[in-house]
Amino acid sequence: MATIAATRLAEALARIKAVLGPKGWTAEPAEMAPYLADERRLWQGRAALVCLPASTKEVAAIVQIGAEARLPIVPQGGNTGMCGGAVPQSPDTVLVNLRRMNRIRALDRLNDAITVEAGCVLADIQNAAEDADRLFPLSLGAEGSCQIGGNLSTNAGGVNVLRYGMTRELVLGLEVVLPDGRVWDGLGALRKDNTGYDLKHLFLGAEGTLGVITAAVLKLFARPRTVETALIGIRDPAAALELLARARADSGDTVVAFELVPRACFDFVLRHIPGAVDPLAARHDWYVLMEWAGGDLGGALRERMEASLGEAAEAGLLRDATIAASDEQRNALWRLRDSITESQKPEGASIKHDVAVPVSRVPEFISRATAAVEREVPGVRVLAFGHVGDGNIHFNLSQPAGGAQDQAARTAFTARTHDINAIVHTITAELGGSISAEHGIGLLKRAELPHYKSAIGLDLMRTLKRAFDPHGIMNPGKVL
Amino acid sequence: MATIAATRLAEALARIKAVLGPKGWTAEPAEMAPYLADERRLWQGRAALVCLPASTKEVAAIVQIGAEARLPIVPQGGNTGMCGGAVPQSPDTVLVNLRRMNRIRALDRLNDAITVEAGCVLADIQNAAEDADRLFPLSLGAEGSCQIGGNLSTNAGGVNVLRYGMTRELVLGLEVVLPDGRVWDGLGALRKDNTGYDLKHLFLGAEGTLGVITAAVLKLFARPRTVETALIGIRDPAAALELLARARADSGDTVVAFELVPRACFDFVLRHIPGAVDPLAARHDWYVLMEWAGGDLGGALRERMEASLGEAAEAGLLRDATIAASDEQRNALWRLRDSITESQKPEGASIKHDVAVPVSRVPEFISRATAAVEREVPGVRVLAFGHVGDGNIHFNLSQPAGGAQDQAARTAFTARTHDINAIVHTITAELGGSISAEHGIGLLKRAELPHYKSAIGLDLMRTLKRAFDPHGIMNPGKVL
Repeated sequence: MATIAATRLAEALARIKAVLGPKGWTAEPAEMAPYLADERRLWQGRAALVCLPASTKEVAAIVQIGAEARLPIVPQGGNTGMCGGAVPQSPDTVLVNLRRMNRIRALDRLNDAITVEAGCVLADIQNAAEDADRLFPLSLGAEGSCQIGGNLSTNAGGVNVLRYGMTRELVLGLEVVLPDGRVWDGLGALRKDNTGYDLKHLFLGAEGTLGVITAAVLKLFARPRTVETALIGIRDPAAALELLARARADSGDTVVAFELVPRACFDFVLRHIPGAVDPLAARHDWYVLMEWAGGDLGGALRERMEASLGEAAEAGLLRDATIAASDEQRNALWRLRDSITESQKPEGASIKHDVAVPVSRVPEFISRATAAVEREVPGVRVLAFGHVGDGNIHFNLSQPAGGAQDQAARTAFTARTHDINAIVHTITAELGGSISAEHGIGLLKRAELPHYKSAIGLDLMRTLKRAFDPHGIMNPGKVL
Repeated sequence: MATIAATRLAEALARIKAVLGPKGWTAEPAEMAPYLADERRLWQGRAALVCLPASTKEVAAIVQIGAEARLPIVPQGGNTGMCGGAVPQSPDTVLVNLRRMNRIRALDRLNDAITVEAGCVLADIQNAAEDADRLFPLSLGAEGSCQIGGNLSTNAGGVNVLRYGMTRELVLGLEVVLPDGRVWDGLGALRKDNTGYDLKHLFLGAEGTLGVITAAVLKLFARPRTVETALIGIRDPAAALELLARARADSGDTVVAFELVPRACFDFVLRHIPGAVDPLAARHDWYVLMEWAGGDLGGALRERMEASLGEAAEAGLLRDATIAASDEQRNALWRLRDSITESQKPEGASIKHDVAVPVSRVPEFISRATAAVEREVPGVRVLAFGHVGDGNIHFNLSQPAGGAQDQAARTAFTARTHDINAIVHTITAELGGSISAEHGIGLLKRAELPHYKSAIGLDLMRTLKRAFDPHGIMNPGKVL
């Protein structure tokens, strides 16, 4: 039996290599290594072959041959995922990295649409849109190296979700290689199409378990001419929610970012990030970093933001605020926010959560989860920050102060990860929340999923998986 | 066999009646009649029983009993659909009308979400949102009688899609009775949730063929404080697209409506609608009705619209324009647009199409389709108007002038429907378009669908249908 399997594997690999040509694959351990290790170095992948197809036709041929031989097929983009969704786990895996499929096939200015191959780097798509005086609003930390195929397969979030939605909502059409090697051409560029089931949503966010996304038509938007950014000192998260409701109304619902940050985060940033400065005179327990975007050129947006903040101050919803007066000041405000993760490192080990709750439950989530973890680990430092406009809190914990250099203290803290996760995720579930707001399930949260998802929901997911991938070859072991 | 089937049917109906109680069903022909006739009187439905369940539990019981007896189950909302999607077609059908399930279960102001039962009338949801100083933006002609369950099942469009998206994009969570009678509770109220496949999109727009939607959590938005509405005279549809691109940028992407109307439509309206007045001094070949919404109170939005239109005039993109100075003037402008369908009636028989193409292809679509139908039916009067910002054109044809009272001429024109559909839909398909932008497939376009949808796409749809409804009992004969 082993010999038959080995022969079948060798034959399939030979056929795939012949399809791809010498530039289109590698089986050299050193060359394969970067594709097998994940971003967070949590897993060590194994594969028989790394394929680098240059066309949809080549992807289809790989999948068809792999399917005939019943080999596991793992699609991969920029390999920047946080949950191990692109890690190949068995030595007979055919890994399909899309990076050579990086053409922008078309940009239709008047349809506000761009057609891209799955291997396009996100920043390249943003730049192509900007060159046409348009905006592609998806924006996240890894945008310089992540690929759109991965963003689509994980339904990526990022900083502009409040105004423009998750990746799923930015898609007009998809091209997908199905688990049997057929190509579904769903590359429509329509805003409205009610001709049957909307198939694209099956593959978006499916983490490559139902097929390989090879291309997409994405929505573009008008590029904002003016952006106004404010840092606002507030009393507590409840005040942030009232402030958000006012800002949405006052801005004509054009708030593009609304980030909640506790003082503890800024303390870390001011301590560890060179050049970081607190722009407000006094300390505040909580902050909001808010951004509006508009089409004004004459300062009207700024006037409206000033008026809105003035009224909020009168209503007792904020204690102090500053609006950036220049791009430099704006960048400095964002640097405070974007440096939080980095500033946590010198403070020692950390345990992180990417959860979402209904926006209205954010204050309750933060207070309950904070109290619970403080009971569990006395002295733990809670950094609960994030995209509060989406109900998405990065509930990150740093070990108790003073132990950063103490390996035993670090290890002891990290050893609590499982218990802490259970505490935080249980509270999340009790508030109707999600244990993975942005990052997906992959390998990382697969075992946890059945505890937080309804049995019927999981059964429907399995029904879908069986219907589309009856032999279970597409990215096996992920999600389900 | 007939006896066994009849016994099985009678037993199942008796069980369903017992579950629902005397108020929950009717089998009286006179009482059933309004549920069996469709909005357009194109079909005459047949059913064994009309069920009026009052709870999700009752819907689940009906479906479970029906599934066990393999009876066809047809869900129905306000019965205002345009394509016969809610028409029961066989005499053993169990029709499930959701109108008694019309509770608003919750409104969460700070989460901008409302939880509604499927039988809620759309206007009641709009009003509940307004009472909380929020906006539920779905708006369409039938809003006074259509039910949200039907809107969700047909992924309804309407006039605000440009700014807020189709119904699908307004949904946070769903509750669905599955074809075996189980209840999937997907009533999450989260903006971000990447924990596996997004199941709600399966049921949205599925026209009741995969389950019965019983409740939903819907997104709310900030209610615009200011609305500015302009009627603009332009040269041709190409100018409309350039104007749209400018308006999106100038408004900070807050254009809520952008409707293209040819002069022929206004000629009909001015001729037949009492009180209709042309607000512009000269005649123009084409018009745009444009609306922006914002948070300003001080007139800034109007100033921006004036500046934008002024620049467009300088660039030669428009010939004349008027901005409504009062609610009364605004209503008058919208009445011109909203009266088009009514004004077509006295002009004789009509043939209508609900198509979409990429926005950039609208001018080509209109000119090609117009030329083609004029060749086919000399003297035909083309009224190509609609939501051009979504690429959605209502390509409506009136019979040649002068024959409205001539029954033979009416009949002769109507007899061309099939040929004309083929011509218009072929051009639509050649431009990458959709033969049903808003209204769905139902019975009306089921036979046409295979000509315009890819074989693989149809096969995936059938795979889904088989996986979720293996006995084919949910709304049989619709869509597929």
